[in-house]
Amino acid sequence: MNKKCVLLLSGGLDSATTLAIAQSEGYEVSALSFDYGQRHAVELASAKAVAAAMGVTDHRVAKIDLRIFGGSALTSDIEVPHGDDPMARSEIPITYVPARNTIFLSFALAMAETIGSFDMFIGANQVDYSGYPDCRGEYLNSFAAMANLATAAAVEGRGTYSIHAPLLDLTKDAIIQRGLELGVPYELTISCYDPVGSLACTTCDSCQIRRSAFAKLNLSDPAPSITSNNG
Amino acid sequence: MNKKCVLLLSGGLDSATTLAIAQSEGYEVSALSFDYGQRHAVELASAKAVAAAMGVTDHRVAKIDLRIFGGSALTSDIEVPHGDDPMARSEIPITYVPARNTIFLSFALAMAETIGSFDMFIGANQVDYSGYPDCRGEYLNSFAAMANLATAAAVEGRGTYSIHAPLLDLTKDAIIQRGLELGVPYELTISCYDPVGSLACTTCDSCQIRRSAFAKLNLSDPAPSITSNNG
Repeated sequence: MNKKCVLLLSGGLDSATTLAIAQSEGYEVSALSFDYGQRHAVELASAKAVAAAMGVTDHRVAKIDLRIFGGSALTSDIEVPHGDDPMARSEIPITYVPARNTIFLSFALAMAETIGSFDMFIGANQVDYSGYPDCRGEYLNSFAAMANLATAAAVEGRGTYSIHAPLLDLTKDAIIQRGLELGVPYELTISCYDPVGSLACTTCDSCQIRRSAFAKLNLSDPAPSITSNNG
Repeated sequence: MNKKCVLLLSGGLDSATTLAIAQSEGYEVSALSFDYGQRHAVELASAKAVAAAMGVTDHRVAKIDLRIFGGSALTSDIEVPHGDDPMARSEIPITYVPARNTIFLSFALAMAETIGSFDMFIGANQVDYSGYPDCRGEYLNSFAAMANLATAAAVEGRGTYSIHAPLLDLTKDAIIQRGLELGVPYELTISCYDPVGSLACTTCDSCQIRRSAFAKLNLSDPAPSITSNNG
């Protein structure tokens, strides 16, 4: 059995947990991160720290510039919302980046084909943040079907591509609980959309969801934040 | 009817012809090219010249580095074959770039979503160069199905993405004939995989296919080549 996999590593909580799960399933992980003009570029430093701490020796950073398209608070001058209740919202958030996971998975597919792997891991989750269309299982299955028509490796019958999204149906606190069991160094991760220097803002959607999940477990979020710094 | 479209423009013969066809169908074309570490970067200069000559005012170049993956003669030190007969080959050529069209179409999808278009044009062709899995109609249909699950615009019901590949089932000489009818400035295009400076080599697969198609029409390839330069 081929146990190599490609994993999308953002530096956030979800992808670090996904990495631990992939390793616990026996996969040798090649990690892929993106420098995509995001305003929260500090996550790349976190991705590197997480990869190093978790023994990933093949970690590549693809530089792509999504700012030529704009259209998202994460890649343009549109303001990131602070203090709103992310769970009270029904529409797709302004932090949605057009086709982002499709672009990321396309690169993961290219990397998988070149290293001879047929397994791709992504920390997508459709429970606590169902606003993103490209975090749904239906989408991920459709991407895998396309990948199996797109590539020489699949068309020549060398294997079948699978997308693994082990967090897909977990709540954020269940994700953290699983990660703590597996020893994920959450203090190295950052999930903030709008960090102040290298510190989490604590009030964007992503910070709020993460902090309240740690709180449900009677823990405080170990990510360096403006609060932990001041307090 | 929304007549904006996103078109993948490489600087080669096929995408220039596709551009002329899209315009003849009434589309206002936004063009997208890639600086992807290709050894034939001269094609970007051709893409710019073609866009300017054909009245495209929105032409963006996305810089992405596919060399971090390698695996193709077009993006690594693997040698481009010269003088082989491209039609006598049954396997996928070494000039195949892993997941390239998937990556290119992912960016086209991001661009389409941000400009409010649901139509993407690609110069894919499955007749004269059937060796690439990601130039087949089956693959393109699968990508469109995925796109309609991937994006906010589709999921919110604002439209349905279509991939237009008007050259898909045309022979190379039929493509050129159609392009000449539409006034494509073929002298500005270059299709060479391994150019010498800004001149076509005349002997790689792509040059051979193109030159023999012009010959079938009793024309000589107007692309600047080492032959036209010397002769």
